[in-house]
Amino acid sequence: MKTIFSTKNTEELIPKIEKFIAEELYPLETSKTLSGNFSDVEPQLHELRKKVKEMGMWGLALPKEAHGYGLTLCEFGQISEALAKSPFGHFVFNSQAPDIGNMELMHKYANESLQEKYLEPLIKGEIRSCFSMTEPEFAGSNPTRMGTTAVKDGDNYVINGHKWFTSSADGATFAIVMAVTDPDASRHQRASQILVPLDSPGYEFVRNIPIMGHAGDSWASHAEVRYHDVVVPQSNLIGAEGAGFLLAQERLGPGRIHHCMRFIGIAERAFDLMVRYAISRELREGTTLAHMQSIQNFIADSRAEINAARLMVLDTADKIDKHGSAAVRNEISTIKFFTANMMLRVIDRSIQTHGALGMTNDIILSYWYAHERAARIYDGADEVHKAALARSIFKNYGFDVTKK
Amino acid sequence: MKTIFSTKNTEELIPKIEKFIAEELYPLETSKTLSGNFSDVEPQLHELRKKVKEMGMWGLALPKEAHGYGLTLCEFGQISEALAKSPFGHFVFNSQAPDIGNMELMHKYANESLQEKYLEPLIKGEIRSCFSMTEPEFAGSNPTRMGTTAVKDGDNYVINGHKWFTSSADGATFAIVMAVTDPDASRHQRASQILVPLDSPGYEFVRNIPIMGHAGDSWASHAEVRYHDVVVPQSNLIGAEGAGFLLAQERLGPGRIHHCMRFIGIAERAFDLMVRYAISRELREGTTLAHMQSIQNFIADSRAEINAARLMVLDTADKIDKHGSAAVRNEISTIKFFTANMMLRVIDRSIQTHGALGMTNDIILSYWYAHERAARIYDGADEVHKAALARSIFKNYGFDVTKK
Amino acid sequence: MKTIFSTKNTEELIPKIEKFIAEELYPLETSKTLSGNFSDVEPQLHELRKKVKEMGMWGLALPKEAHGYGLTLCEFGQISEALAKSPFGHFVFNSQAPDIGNMELMHKYANESLQEKYLEPLIKGEIRSCFSMTEPEFAGSNPTRMGTTAVKDGDNYVINGHKWFTSSADGATFAIVMAVTDPDASRHQRASQILVPLDSPGYEFVRNIPIMGHAGDSWASHAEVRYHDVVVPQSNLIGAEGAGFLLAQERLGPGRIHHCMRFIGIAERAFDLMVRYAISRELREGTTLAHMQSIQNFIADSRAEINAARLMVLDTADKIDKHGSAAVRNEISTIKFFTANMMLRVIDRSIQTHGALGMTNDIILSYWYAHERAARIYDGADEVHKAALARSIFKNYGFDVTKK
Amino acid sequence: MKTIFSTKNTEELIPKIEKFIAEELYPLETSKTLSGNFSDVEPQLHELRKKVKEMGMWGLALPKEAHGYGLTLCEFGQISEALAKSPFGHFVFNSQAPDIGNMELMHKYANESLQEKYLEPLIKGEIRSCFSMTEPEFAGSNPTRMGTTAVKDGDNYVINGHKWFTSSADGATFAIVMAVTDPDASRHQRASQILVPLDSPGYEFVRNIPIMGHAGDSWASHAEVRYHDVVVPQSNLIGAEGAGFLLAQERLGPGRIHHCMRFIGIAERAFDLMVRYAISRELREGTTLAHMQSIQNFIADSRAEINAARLMVLDTADKIDKHGSAAVRNEISTIKFFTANMMLRVIDRSIQTHGALGMTNDIILSYWYAHERAARIYDGADEVHKAALARSIFKNYGFDVTKK
Repeated sequence: MKTIFSTKNTEELIPKIEKFIAEELYPLETSKTLSGNFSDVEPQLHELRKKVKEMGMWGLALPKEAHGYGLTLCEFGQISEALAKSPFGHFVFNSQAPDIGNMELMHKYANESLQEKYLEPLIKGEIRSCFSMTEPEFAGSNPTRMGTTAVKDGDNYVINGHKWFTSSADGATFAIVMAVTDPDASRHQRASQILVPLDSPGYEFVRNIPIMGHAGDSWASHAEVRYHDVVVPQSNLIGAEGAGFLLAQERLGPGRIHHCMRFIGIAERAFDLMVRYAISRELREGTTLAHMQSIQNFIADSRAEINAARLMVLDTADKIDKHGSAAVRNEISTIKFFTANMMLRVIDRSIQTHGALGMTNDIILSYWYAHERAARIYDGADEVHKAALARSIFKNYGFDVTKK
Repeated sequence: MKTIFSTKNTEELIPKIEKFIAEELYPLETSKTLSGNFSDVEPQLHELRKKVKEMGMWGLALPKEAHGYGLTLCEFGQISEALAKSPFGHFVFNSQAPDIGNMELMHKYANESLQEKYLEPLIKGEIRSCFSMTEPEFAGSNPTRMGTTAVKDGDNYVINGHKWFTSSADGATFAIVMAVTDPDASRHQRASQILVPLDSPGYEFVRNIPIMGHAGDSWASHAEVRYHDVVVPQSNLIGAEGAGFLLAQERLGPGRIHHCMRFIGIAERAFDLMVRYAISRELREGTTLAHMQSIQNFIADSRAEINAARLMVLDTADKIDKHGSAAVRNEISTIKFFTANMMLRVIDRSIQTHGALGMTNDIILSYWYAHERAARIYDGADEVHKAALARSIFKNYGFDVTKK
Repeated sequence: MKTIFSTKNTEELIPKIEKFIAEELYPLETSKTLSGNFSDVEPQLHELRKKVKEMGMWGLALPKEAHGYGLTLCEFGQISEALAKSPFGHFVFNSQAPDIGNMELMHKYANESLQEKYLEPLIKGEIRSCFSMTEPEFAGSNPTRMGTTAVKDGDNYVINGHKWFTSSADGATFAIVMAVTDPDASRHQRASQILVPLDSPGYEFVRNIPIMGHAGDSWASHAEVRYHDVVVPQSNLIGAEGAGFLLAQERLGPGRIHHCMRFIGIAERAFDLMVRYAISRELREGTTLAHMQSIQNFIADSRAEINAARLMVLDTADKIDKHGSAAVRNEISTIKFFTANMMLRVIDRSIQTHGALGMTNDIILSYWYAHERAARIYDGADEVHKAALARSIFKNYGFDVTKK
Repeated sequence: MKTIFSTKNTEELIPKIEKFIAEELYPLETSKTLSGNFSDVEPQLHELRKKVKEMGMWGLALPKEAHGYGLTLCEFGQISEALAKSPFGHFVFNSQAPDIGNMELMHKYANESLQEKYLEPLIKGEIRSCFSMTEPEFAGSNPTRMGTTAVKDGDNYVINGHKWFTSSADGATFAIVMAVTDPDASRHQRASQILVPLDSPGYEFVRNIPIMGHAGDSWASHAEVRYHDVVVPQSNLIGAEGAGFLLAQERLGPGRIHHCMRFIGIAERAFDLMVRYAISRELREGTTLAHMQSIQNFIADSRAEINAARLMVLDTADKIDKHGSAAVRNEISTIKFFTANMMLRVIDRSIQTHGALGMTNDIILSYWYAHERAARIYDGADEVHKAALARSIFKNYGFDVTKK
């Protein structure tokens, strides 16, 4: 949908991307790939990456100086929506989490040697990476409590810890690990981000965690890992020591735009499937699902909610472009819970419209129903964002709710 | 909240308006005025109209050629939000429904003589008017069925009919009446809009309809009226004969923007009251309502929903400005049900936060809770808009759901 | 609806009551009475009370030893549902709050002299009473904080305080006032309940509070009152000194059953109106509202929710009859918020079905929409009950959430 | 929870069953079994079936004359809730769908020879069966349209057709197939139910349909199958020819009680997990999830909704026991959509409470989240039941909505 946020770039790129995705990726969404392992379909996706490069569309998310397109966040948001219409879209365009976040971070904060060794092949799509932050023992809503430690030993760090939901660790070349470097520092300055090559001795890949009945593999997986006295040089530090929390925050601003626009792309595809099925499924001679007012309500509510969410996310992206993330922290919280919930409602309505078919992997919906449920949990659960937003609103009224 | 739709005009006007409304109108919202008749407070409001004129802010909704401000619809939408923060705001700025709609209509379609005699004093705020369309015997969602007739007799029309929800008829100088002029025409060309002076013989003011326990009076009322052989010259026709439905549609586009932005203004005020009460109401030593996560959820959800609705309405207004109403009929349906429901949820949460106080007329909330419930009904009930939107979406997919 | 909780008593009484209410009370629900003052219709209701006595149906809520019917709570709950189908039902059968609660309390805990002087005429319907607990300065969810005091002076109490939502104080003969008699006692033993004749010097009737646009009068009103050095003999104490909180709790068990069944009766009537209107309102030739699936959804959801709520309330009443209130405290919290919310949803759907008519006082719905909104607030707001219920559930799992 | 529907049987049996399930089945719910195939855990379950027989608890669902317990439907409903607390419960007690429905049907309607050959080993748990009704080409909400045919040829039927969601066909010994035997009969008399041994020539097992990312196997699977000129003797008919729809309806009454009570058991387990996690998961020193009001709201709402649903289902079961299914068709529709939606909300809240853990197969929740989504679809989608219920209510008011 064209909005006030459309630009020359988006108007030029998006139709091409949508065409490519519909023609090349939709056919790959089969009941086999949607209920199998990612590695089954991965070779085909690597072939398609070549096509993307040939079309000159590699690096959509990257700044010009990293040989990227130099799109604004608001523009890339709109691209991200288009990519999300297939679960393989971001991967084929090398814009997939967590690599995209690692690229942005390393582009800004990694030293030259790390950039040469790790960032460049990552940008080229030759290797994959992961981000190792969440720990099973500590609630995610409190990033200042963390069990993983990086202790200095000569020129090295010795890292010990237990992480899970280290997404895409399976097959990754390196992890960026969040670890406590100074337990005595003030709460937000205890942790640092350190690059750890995953062939390091002491790194233990415990398992891909079974999620909703399937452990997945390769890029499409969420690993539990352990670090047992893993030794890396201190030069593997990303950014300043103690800046781990700060960098995680910085990652979150644009990261949330990417995610939210991905949610919107998924919702649009689920919407499109819902409408197509409604008009084609006959209940009895001459009467289709589209004639049912319940289905009409699903469609109307979904249309309204998707449109509203998109405008809110793009408005936020536009403000980040203009004023930086810090200025719109409330909006960033807001779009996260609003958009995630919207997406899940639209998926759910589309499944309900499809009836038994909606449960199957003959179409994409159940894949998203299962895997995107996490959208209300990761990067801050709904409840955490809502409380944070309310606290911040109270503060604007001069009331500090953290003090009794 | 500043959005991408802010302009020099809105940035200049809105702070002044908000200051005026807070200083001059909030004090008029007393338990007496909120549970009494409009005529009790009317003289004070007429005094304030003078102030508005002195401030040079009269005619905000009017085009330049009608000595107005010449704001775009998108700009006036933002003004309308500000005005809506008090139930007296639109009236004091002479931008109240139904007069504002009648002004727009007559400015475009009334002949010179009608403009001189009726439109000019209306613009000056010397008289009031009403719009007489809805009939108790026919469901509102089907504007092509109508019992009121205007039969030609020489140079005159003879009008007979029964209307209700003719808002603000009490004290109005004239009504614009929708009546069937050609029962044999095709469905959308049967009716015309005719100006009827309310001192015409045969006009019967039946009653102000009691709504939610109160019949109201003057501008703040909804009348049941009857037309018994009311005779008016054919020159009282507004627009072409048979164009009644078309003009009603044309009225609806901008009218819906006005309404929806009014809903948003109300929601913002309800939100503001909710936050202020939450931080000030103590539950026990050192613990306020603001410390309660349930209240935090109310506030966060409300913030998200208001922001989303505003962007969607202003985006629609902007598109009407750029491309006309016809191009965004779907968006116009969408904002109506989305915004009305949002407003009612926010009012409801604010009442719940206020507890027993929220039920009283010591604050404005219960006034809106009762009177704005109609927002989901008039100008097309939720269900009607949703079905219309879905039908139109199906059409874009090449499927006509009206045919079996 | 016949349920497993039907008994010989309910099967005999309810059809008679429903017939009486439909024939005698429905005709009194006019747009005039529904938007006017209670005192306008009160004389007619007193006439009908005579009929009720003649039918031998006076005292349905009272125990046999108080010349009542001796129904179980579960049986009276079912009667209460039937009475609630008209807003005048409980009054005509002298089962209206707050008198019914005062009768139960005084029957058990008032001394003989108070019973003779106040309870007997109350039971006969010759006088009315009120219960004066809520204070504007203190949040209702914390009954142990209270500003009203009763200080001993010789044989008397001297009472000072400020109350509001003292329902039905207008025209009442006496109030039962909750006042702090021992500020140094443990939290739940500070207050007592004291009978105060309302012709006592120092009693100030401040106002009937305007609620949703109308202050009401007589029984149908909620007063703000003040007690300035009001002197009553200590023998006006109800129950033991310091037992105020305990008696309030005891009042709440059966009181909540009454209320919840009243909610269900209202919901059933709103449901009945919704169905009748749906099948009779034509949208176009041969198509009624009943043909619309949106309306069908309203009706189906309402049917399910009412049935569920009724069973849960009656199951709770049955358990109170068998095991006492203390054993089912959780159930009592549960039914309050569940049933109040259910009722408001059903009323709302019925209004939406009625369209513009639903906003008017030509039918009963808007009356309930406005006045029953309080159901989610009084006697413990939703949020308070939910938190209390959760705390109690945690306790059953051995976890005390009140301690950190 | 003890309710008015508890009996001596339920009070005796349920504690034993709950103990067995907690001790024997909960330990089998591992991330391996929950993301693997049923056949991996099946041998252990068969061992446990022996224990169940030794405990004398085999045949809980069967009438006395079939060597069962002879429980009422209302009693077995309560048992079914207890069994549902583990996904393996019903299987271990040989009360799993679709076998239990086939047993009931064949007990009543199969001839002696079929009973001997198929029903007896089914009751003993030696074989499994399936029920082959749904067809991909026809919407499930219209059971009178069907593509599968059984044409008489001498003493045989020749069956052709395409079915899916033939649950548990993988490994089953026979199917009961719904096929059209008389296409010219009136709508509800066209189809018959015919027993088809699955080793019959012409029977094609197409696949286990991947559902939410996993095709499953053995009992825990949903097959697509085809019948190509499958020949069975006419004596394999179950019940009368043309009675297929009627028998399907008869199956649905008790079947719906089984399902709904299963939903309630699942909801109770999800609730239990939610409470246990809330009180044990620390957010920061001394503060657990249980201290969060959002979580308290989840718990309170869930408690209310489960209790309400249970009472409604058992009340319906009790009425079926007393008056037969036909008398409570509306209640049977009502409990289906009410209970399915309740269960899914409770599961969803429990997942949200568990955060990232809730997504994994380290606990049972995501298994149910994925697989029980179908509860709002099979045996009549929500929308179908709501429309049917509304239609029936209109009929009670004398209005036939199927006629225009």
